[in-house]
Amino acid sequence: MIGQESRFDFDRRRRIGMVEAIWGENKTSQQIAGILRELEKCNEIGLVTRVLPDKAKELITSFPCAEFHNKSRCLTIGTPPDPIPELGKVCVLSGGTSDITVASEAELALRLHGIQTEVIVDLGVAGLHRLFQNLERIKTAKVVIACAGMEGALPTVLSGLIPQPVIGVPVSIGYGVSLGGRTALEGMLGSCAPGLVVVNIDNGYGAAMAALRIMQQ
Amino acid sequence: MIGQESRFDFDRRRRIGMVEAIWGENKTSQQIAGILRELEKCNEIGLVTRVLPDKAKELITSFPCAEFHNKSRCLTIGTPPDPIPELGKVCVLSGGTSDITVASEAELALRLHGIQTEVIVDLGVAGLHRLFQNLERIKTAKVVIACAGMEGALPTVLSGLIPQPVIGVPVSIGYGVSLGGRTALEGMLGSCAPGLVVVNIDNGYGAAMAALRIMQQ
Amino acid sequence: MIGQESRFDFDRRRRIGMVEAIWGENKTSQQIAGILRELEKCNEIGLVTRVLPDKAKELITSFPCAEFHNKSRCLTIGTPPDPIPELGKVCVLSGGTSDITVASEAELALRLHGIQTEVIVDLGVAGLHRLFQNLERIKTAKVVIACAGMEGALPTVLSGLIPQPVIGVPVSIGYGVSLGGRTALEGMLGSCAPGLVVVNIDNGYGAAMAALRIMQQ
Amino acid sequence: MIGQESRFDFDRRRRIGMVEAIWGENKTSQQIAGILRELEKCNEIGLVTRVLPDKAKELITSFPCAEFHNKSRCLTIGTPPDPIPELGKVCVLSGGTSDITVASEAELALRLHGIQTEVIVDLGVAGLHRLFQNLERIKTAKVVIACAGMEGALPTVLSGLIPQPVIGVPVSIGYGVSLGGRTALEGMLGSCAPGLVVVNIDNGYGAAMAALRIMQQ
Amino acid sequence: MIGQESRFDFDRRRRIGMVEAIWGENKTSQQIAGILRELEKCNEIGLVTRVLPDKAKELITSFPCAEFHNKSRCLTIGTPPDPIPELGKVCVLSGGTSDITVASEAELALRLHGIQTEVIVDLGVAGLHRLFQNLERIKTAKVVIACAGMEGALPTVLSGLIPQPVIGVPVSIGYGVSLGGRTALEGMLGSCAPGLVVVNIDNGYGAAMAALRIMQQ
Amino acid sequence: MIGQESRFDFDRRRRIGMVEAIWGENKTSQQIAGILRELEKCNEIGLVTRVLPDKAKELITSFPCAEFHNKSRCLTIGTPPDPIPELGKVCVLSGGTSDITVASEAELALRLHGIQTEVIVDLGVAGLHRLFQNLERIKTAKVVIACAGMEGALPTVLSGLIPQPVIGVPVSIGYGVSLGGRTALEGMLGSCAPGLVVVNIDNGYGAAMAALRIMQQ
Amino acid sequence: MIGQESRFDFDRRRRIGMVEAIWGENKTSQQIAGILRELEKCNEIGLVTRVLPDKAKELITSFPCAEFHNKSRCLTIGTPPDPIPELGKVCVLSGGTSDITVASEAELALRLHGIQTEVIVDLGVAGLHRLFQNLERIKTAKVVIACAGMEGALPTVLSGLIPQPVIGVPVSIGYGVSLGGRTALEGMLGSCAPGLVVVNIDNGYGAAMAALRIMQQ
Amino acid sequence: MIGQESRFDFDRRRRIGMVEAIWGENKTSQQIAGILRELEKCNEIGLVTRVLPDKAKELITSFPCAEFHNKSRCLTIGTPPDPIPELGKVCVLSGGTSDITVASEAELALRLHGIQTEVIVDLGVAGLHRLFQNLERIKTAKVVIACAGMEGALPTVLSGLIPQPVIGVPVSIGYGVSLGGRTALEGMLGSCAPGLVVVNIDNGYGAAMAALRIMQQ
Repeated sequence: MIGQESRFDFDRRRRIGMVEAIWGENKTSQQIAGILRELEKCNEIGLVTRVLPDKAKELITSFPCAEFHNKSRCLTIGTPPDPIPELGKVCVLSGGTSDITVASEAELALRLHGIQTEVIVDLGVAGLHRLFQNLERIKTAKVVIACAGMEGALPTVLSGLIPQPVIGVPVSIGYGVSLGGRTALEGMLGSCAPGLVVVNIDNGYGAAMAALRIMQQ
Repeated sequence: MIGQESRFDFDRRRRIGMVEAIWGENKTSQQIAGILRELEKCNEIGLVTRVLPDKAKELITSFPCAEFHNKSRCLTIGTPPDPIPELGKVCVLSGGTSDITVASEAELALRLHGIQTEVIVDLGVAGLHRLFQNLERIKTAKVVIACAGMEGALPTVLSGLIPQPVIGVPVSIGYGVSLGGRTALEGMLGSCAPGLVVVNIDNGYGAAMAALRIMQQ
Repeated sequence: MIGQESRFDFDRRRRIGMVEAIWGENKTSQQIAGILRELEKCNEIGLVTRVLPDKAKELITSFPCAEFHNKSRCLTIGTPPDPIPELGKVCVLSGGTSDITVASEAELALRLHGIQTEVIVDLGVAGLHRLFQNLERIKTAKVVIACAGMEGALPTVLSGLIPQPVIGVPVSIGYGVSLGGRTALEGMLGSCAPGLVVVNIDNGYGAAMAALRIMQQ
Repeated sequence: MIGQESRFDFDRRRRIGMVEAIWGENKTSQQIAGILRELEKCNEIGLVTRVLPDKAKELITSFPCAEFHNKSRCLTIGTPPDPIPELGKVCVLSGGTSDITVASEAELALRLHGIQTEVIVDLGVAGLHRLFQNLERIKTAKVVIACAGMEGALPTVLSGLIPQPVIGVPVSIGYGVSLGGRTALEGMLGSCAPGLVVVNIDNGYGAAMAALRIMQQ
Repeated sequence: MIGQESRFDFDRRRRIGMVEAIWGENKTSQQIAGILRELEKCNEIGLVTRVLPDKAKELITSFPCAEFHNKSRCLTIGTPPDPIPELGKVCVLSGGTSDITVASEAELALRLHGIQTEVIVDLGVAGLHRLFQNLERIKTAKVVIACAGMEGALPTVLSGLIPQPVIGVPVSIGYGVSLGGRTALEGMLGSCAPGLVVVNIDNGYGAAMAALRIMQQ
Repeated sequence: MIGQESRFDFDRRRRIGMVEAIWGENKTSQQIAGILRELEKCNEIGLVTRVLPDKAKELITSFPCAEFHNKSRCLTIGTPPDPIPELGKVCVLSGGTSDITVASEAELALRLHGIQTEVIVDLGVAGLHRLFQNLERIKTAKVVIACAGMEGALPTVLSGLIPQPVIGVPVSIGYGVSLGGRTALEGMLGSCAPGLVVVNIDNGYGAAMAALRIMQQ
Repeated sequence: MIGQESRFDFDRRRRIGMVEAIWGENKTSQQIAGILRELEKCNEIGLVTRVLPDKAKELITSFPCAEFHNKSRCLTIGTPPDPIPELGKVCVLSGGTSDITVASEAELALRLHGIQTEVIVDLGVAGLHRLFQNLERIKTAKVVIACAGMEGALPTVLSGLIPQPVIGVPVSIGYGVSLGGRTALEGMLGSCAPGLVVVNIDNGYGAAMAALRIMQQ
Repeated sequence: MIGQESRFDFDRRRRIGMVEAIWGENKTSQQIAGILRELEKCNEIGLVTRVLPDKAKELITSFPCAEFHNKSRCLTIGTPPDPIPELGKVCVLSGGTSDITVASEAELALRLHGIQTEVIVDLGVAGLHRLFQNLERIKTAKVVIACAGMEGALPTVLSGLIPQPVIGVPVSIGYGVSLGGRTALEGMLGSCAPGLVVVNIDNGYGAAMAALRIMQQ
């Protein structure tokens, strides 16, 4: 098999400003270990998303310098830069307790790039008072990431209240018609609120990288 | 062909308390005329929904006692009963200007059964202030019908704010993922607000009959 | 992380008349335990839906005052009010033996709010005689909740026979095209019976809260 | 282009016992005329389904021996055999006025093969009394074809009441979730009634040919 | 809970000529045991479909008179009638080795009603010679049940070759677009072969009952 | 009907920085004229999207100060502010000639808010050389809007090449599986390129408002 | 607007061996005329697909050297090369009369590249004898393109009978579940016949270019 | 049960040039063992796809001459022919590490038929430089198989760069909208690149057989 050796895209950081990220879900421990070894060798920061605790435990044993983040199901290697407060912060919101994994993935991915973050949870639209209590705090962010499952109305309501970029992250929480996150996704895309943008279901990492692109402007 | 003569269900009014309603969309003028003739003969009130203006004009010529309601695209025959204020009223809300046909169909169907109604329009969730301005008025209703297209979040937000029965009517207004009303429908069904009930897309008449069932308790 | 402390919406009971309900399916035992602890502290009634027996057993050990309801897969905490017979009762129907979990969830949620209920099972439309045998009893209810999987025709047939509000609950029982409850859901939404309202698939709790909203009028 | 000359399958009648049938919808008048000419030459009976009145009028002018059946939107050529009463009859039922085109297509296709038919209309499940009034008559048929749009529950209810073969024909009548007949189709397929068989949406002709296969046993 | 005692529809056999059948998939061993006990008490024949081997083993221990049929994943109780050869036979065909469970369910259900059957396997349309080798034998049946997964073309090809009733059973065998049997189902419904009828995916029992209805004419 | 008078959200400009925009597709000329009259009265800038040429011509006659933009099918009223070059520019790309309407809608909406834009067309991924020829020019933008129909791969390829925020706009151009823009939409959402955000199908206006939110940071 | 001048990809012919092809469906006459003018200027061969007769007539008037091919709804400009018989031929098959437009598009596109073709029509799988009559002739081709609507089984059956490359083209002919060609597409993709490849629905041009790629090896 | 003995299609190799292939996923170890025994007896080469390691280990014990290929999850029996270099080679590309199983299945299936192959991995379109580095090598192949999950854009980009036949294999790698491979499949089918052909999701074997058909011309 050809080209294994040059598989990494170490030029990516220079080209689009992002550290190496590996989608851990469909990879074996061996495949992930191989990647971590290369990153370690090159002294690169790396993020592995969607790692189940058991797989993580196994990997941590071989890579003591790696760290597992249980809340976000992510594994990191390397030392992230210190946050630069004057760049401003990204607010990561979640509609319910069950959306926290996705929100935490977004938050961790941003911190790994030196971006300051603030997470606010349990902001479902069936209890608007919680959203209004936190609105002023949310308005201090430069970009807002709003995670929501079920009908996914949080980013729509929010986009009507603040002028900042709002990135909606549909979450695969729900049952019946909401199962798998499609309803939340389409609710955000079909939203009557102007200028709301969306990423794939559960894609906390993608939302973070979109926020990073904006913060870097 | 058998049984044409007994086609009507004049017992329906006694059985479930509703006047005869005819879905006009897939019927020819001749078919509708035949039905109106029978109703006229029996001195019955009748409602024909989804009648295009041209078809209506043609029918009105033959049935001077029929009335066409342009806003709701409905045709009625017979004299509706006077509203009974002490029964309470039904509030019919619409998210945007384009939902008015559906909201009007609901309103007309209720009036035809002697139920008092109030219509409030342009209550989109991307501008929550309009909803809050009207909230006290909405709270005076016994049942609320909330029509919304696009992402359909209005009934969800509303159900978190008031204790009344809320009937969501998804409207086939929108484009892209919202085209045809599926997104609004599933947003309402997958809603995080407890006790929100839903009818078929654009089914203003159905929402009205559901409200009628509740009012009659 | 901000705002954890104010996560509960204890004002909800006053605002929309419902006790705290927690969707247990995507929460860990720890997360549920945290919530129960708060409810216990405040002497509040609480309902946790969709709890698997193993998780329930674990929680019961730490919360001896909590009760697990095996038939409905629900956990409750706190003492429900005595039912008030003069408010009338809600009839909860199920199409087949496999729909009982959903019907029981609806029934329990209503009892927790002091509403009298009656459950009647095995009323599939392929054997109409069973429905007719129970029709008079059903007619004594103020609201009817009808749970059905497969083709979901029970609420349609029922709505043509009685004048009460009928809330259809599609159930995710079936295989092939019926798998997941979509067919039952769309059959109820597309129903030719006027005034039938629908909630999300398997949403017994939601149907109960809709009935509660109606009973409270 | 090769093989135009041998396009017809005149052997079909001998092989599977059916006269030539042409699906008229996506064919031009010229294409249909060419086919009719061949049938005329060979003295064969032929059925063209889904012909709009204007196209039919144009074709009738050139083929005076052809006949247009407005109710079923079909065109026939050739003389059908006399019905043979001792073979028994097929009952064709329709749920509503709007299903009549499909029911009539089934009825005409059967008559063209010498099968006796009886059509009974307006048997919607939201008014079961009509079905019960006609049940004895329906039971005299050897095969029953039941056409229904909306939620399509008629064949399900019927299959629980009679022992005959029941062929369900979903009809593309309805709006919202019912639009296009999918809901009726899946309701029939997912039915809890044992032994109900189904054909494609609006496929009256196909149901007739299925009945013919059964009658010929 | 009301009406448990009268749950069974023992009148069904008289009404539509079918023995009691229980869909075992979503029922617990206890629920199935309860049903078997009733059947045993009344000396009735019964069929439980979709029983996994482990559940079956458990039940067989308590019901020594019950029999588990591993190939069809069915459990039966009671003695089936002797087949009556002069009624004719039903041919059950399967497209591939993986369709055998469904074909066997159909075959067992027919035998339980005294119908003679013949099963022929591995008749995929990608190797037509196998079908042609068995065609004469197939033509001796009164009804043909054709099970097929993947693209599901077997019943279509067959319906063009024989005049008998053909009942297509789509099977949930396949991957990618074929996963779950939708492609096979829609291929059969959309078939260009006239008079092909279809039942739900994997519904061997339903196909058998449809064949029974035909055989009883 | 209540609240007609206060329908406009003139506070929106102050709250989220956007001028009034009206979705023209499902509104009658009268409805649009009513809105334009109000805007004219208040000296407000307004944008009406999705106006067919005939409707536009009719409106222009009554509102000589309004302007119709044929390429984007938009109507504007009021004088847009001069662009402020130091704010930077937004690059609007289109995959093919048929995507131009959507790209032009985005471009016009931005110009109306004083944002400088540059449009580059015919950048399909089946001819990558065109994209590479324009890459340096694209890199001078602060935000890039990439419109694409068919398989919608342009924003994915682009996001791997530049560090700027990229907003993908799926376009309803295509046939077969691409019909309606779903394939382009899901291709962008499921993209392997990190940080790509997406708006609804054909939503050029929404992409522009998202870009505006970013530019205003 | 930038880059209009360099829009054409005249290098394409050298790079991948195909003449310029324009998808005519969503382009105005003016847009197509602009393209034809450029092709004419450069003496290039060009193919415009999906042109309605009226649009074609209008264009032919301005471009007398262009030719409209009514059967395939295509417009060509420039002189195609003479076919080179020794390269072998491509056989284009169609399942029914209604598939001819798609088959003709494939045939024309191949002829424009100097490839010899043979078209054989009306080869539906419900009448296999027609296919067997033509099998020897089909086997003389180097590549076979098989167009089919409805259930789309033709390419599957064919792939089991011949060793040549078979390219399936699903056609949007059919109704009910077959409407739009999805069923034919998925039937071909899910086929049990090994090595069958598929293009988009109605994509006769794409199938031709796939055949061309093979012929050029 | 009839015809078990003649189940194999040993004539297939002569008819369409392919060795026996068994889809292992839905077969039990016993069923696969039965097939291997027959192949062994006849000295035939055989390929079993989609075999999980545990099932493979079990089978290898009984068939020491069989070989399990872990990377492709395939089991083979018999000695493949030596590759014939002058026939040319097939290049098998994969978009990411997670697509390797599918790519390896294609590669193994080709080698089993004596076709020379070359596999190149990690060619995602979000890092085009890797594709360009390998382009010259890819151009030396006679046929290219391109496997890709997520948005599946690799075969589209590639088809615009090379004149060879390109067979796209969508891979069921991804999450959210990409889950199950639908998005990749439709992206390839809806592609703007002319002449790209597609097989079912994850169908590496099918792509190999399509390539074989081409190589044998």
